[in-house]
Amino acid sequence: MSQKCIGIDIGGTTVKIGVFTTEGELLKKWEIPTRKEEDGKYILGDIAASVKEKAAEWDMPYADFVGAGMGLPGPVEPDGHIPFCVNLGWKAGNPQEELSALLGMPVKSGNDANVAALGEMWQGGGRGYQNLVMVTLGTGVGGGIILNEQIWPGVKGVAGEIGHMHVMDEEKEQCNCGGYGCLEQAASATGIARVATRMLAAEETPSVLREIETITAKDVLDAAKAGDELALAAINKAMRYLGWAMASITMVVDPQAYIIGGGVSKAGTFLTDMIQKYHDVMSPMSTQKAKVVLAELGNDAGIYGAARLILG
Amino acid sequence: MSQKCIGIDIGGTTVKIGVFTTEGELLKKWEIPTRKEEDGKYILGDIAASVKEKAAEWDMPYADFVGAGMGLPGPVEPDGHIPFCVNLGWKAGNPQEELSALLGMPVKSGNDANVAALGEMWQGGGRGYQNLVMVTLGTGVGGGIILNEQIWPGVKGVAGEIGHMHVMDEEKEQCNCGGYGCLEQAASATGIARVATRMLAAEETPSVLREIETITAKDVLDAAKAGDELALAAINKAMRYLGWAMASITMVVDPQAYIIGGGVSKAGTFLTDMIQKYHDVMSPMSTQKAKVVLAELGNDAGIYGAARLILG
Repeated sequence: MSQKCIGIDIGGTTVKIGVFTTEGELLKKWEIPTRKEEDGKYILGDIAASVKEKAAEWDMPYADFVGAGMGLPGPVEPDGHIPFCVNLGWKAGNPQEELSALLGMPVKSGNDANVAALGEMWQGGGRGYQNLVMVTLGTGVGGGIILNEQIWPGVKGVAGEIGHMHVMDEEKEQCNCGGYGCLEQAASATGIARVATRMLAAEETPSVLREIETITAKDVLDAAKAGDELALAAINKAMRYLGWAMASITMVVDPQAYIIGGGVSKAGTFLTDMIQKYHDVMSPMSTQKAKVVLAELGNDAGIYGAARLILG
Repeated sequence: MSQKCIGIDIGGTTVKIGVFTTEGELLKKWEIPTRKEEDGKYILGDIAASVKEKAAEWDMPYADFVGAGMGLPGPVEPDGHIPFCVNLGWKAGNPQEELSALLGMPVKSGNDANVAALGEMWQGGGRGYQNLVMVTLGTGVGGGIILNEQIWPGVKGVAGEIGHMHVMDEEKEQCNCGGYGCLEQAASATGIARVATRMLAAEETPSVLREIETITAKDVLDAAKAGDELALAAINKAMRYLGWAMASITMVVDPQAYIIGGGVSKAGTFLTDMIQKYHDVMSPMSTQKAKVVLAELGNDAGIYGAARLILG
């Protein structure tokens, strides 16, 4: 009998599910659609049914499961209560208690960005670190704070919302959060594209980006890697804001490492070297610098972290 | 037999010592000079001798002491090891082990700013909160992070060094830390005076501050309270930087409260109301705002926190 745990990552379109050994080996993974109709009332039932069906199909004795973890796209309080979950259509409730009753095993839940950070700590770019901050550079900028191998969700679930740290004091365009000059407005995929687009409009410098109608972060990164001066300036500007915010995080929680994930992180060490440089320059107080490393688990970070969550 | 604990706050000039009940009542306090000569080799012996002498004088049975806590003006690692302590002349070592041997009781130590935060949580402005950030506005800007009723010192003891969060991106004058534009350069006593002095030089606005040769933070605060327009603008500018840094801290650790201490905090709710306003405006993500409150223990925060440290 080998003990197993289940990791569930609920997104707005699909639910990813994985079965792991308690040592962290991914044995099986699959996806089911997220049925958001009627306030998402079918989601948890669908998950439970799918887990039971797959366990039977693969002859996995149900008694081997020590429990399941679940990542949710919204704030989660320490006891599993959620105030709402807009992306799934859920109102206030305690989905982890509901799923536990449906599955007949212990269930723990957390915010998806935090859970992904835990996954990277367990089996990804953060292996070997007990204290780290994950930075996800996607459409927005997300974050997760891991202290002593545990998610630090904050008192109201706001901890790790590093995309909404204020960095651009002159910014006139409003962020989704209602603020102005948030990190996300510069360092997300959207942000990088905007920084470059503004530079193109403001400067005369020739650039390969001028031939592109709608510039993406990938365009900017590819051009920068190829030596395009303006693209390089744009990516440096965006990553300096990120390094600045991370230097501030270092002054607050002083982690061992930063794990950089999300679509933008596909630019690899070209990006992390730049982030490391700005972080280090902007945190002179810290003599032994936190390491900036790449995430390794991609879209599976959520199921890894969810599975790790139930292991305590 | 009533259990007691000892709090020791070692500063560059004096060592403050307090005897407390384990419930947090201060029974006795006194001071001895800090003998820094010969690399501070007499400091711990002086403390042990003084504690023993006072315990005998006051007929306090030595067996009643559950232990002693100690705040040090420098970084302290989780096991009590220190890399150095410039202000006391100490090189690398483990002063808590040394003092424990001298006193014959358990001793725990921590950085003085962090220890003061713990004191305010225990018996000061932070009573009732388990998660808070203390902000000390003195000659510099210090900080202490308390999570789950424990000091969070960070991996290298840098956590809570919030005075060195970067906020003034155009600043050309260098901070003591080697950086440029640190919070401390605007929101410390020195910083507030500098912000006002610069404004006086740059603007024509009449101000009572123009009659003062060397402006202090107290001058600025007094004038601002009395309605002086320029002084009010200067203090708003400085406190906006503080509110900004605190809003960033909220995005990272999401505490219940901020405790404002240090000499500048004598300006009272005039100051904390202003800080609360800027913090709230700059953290729109956080719907239930952390409370900004005044510290209550003054210079005794260190001995309270040190005593609390040994209670675990």
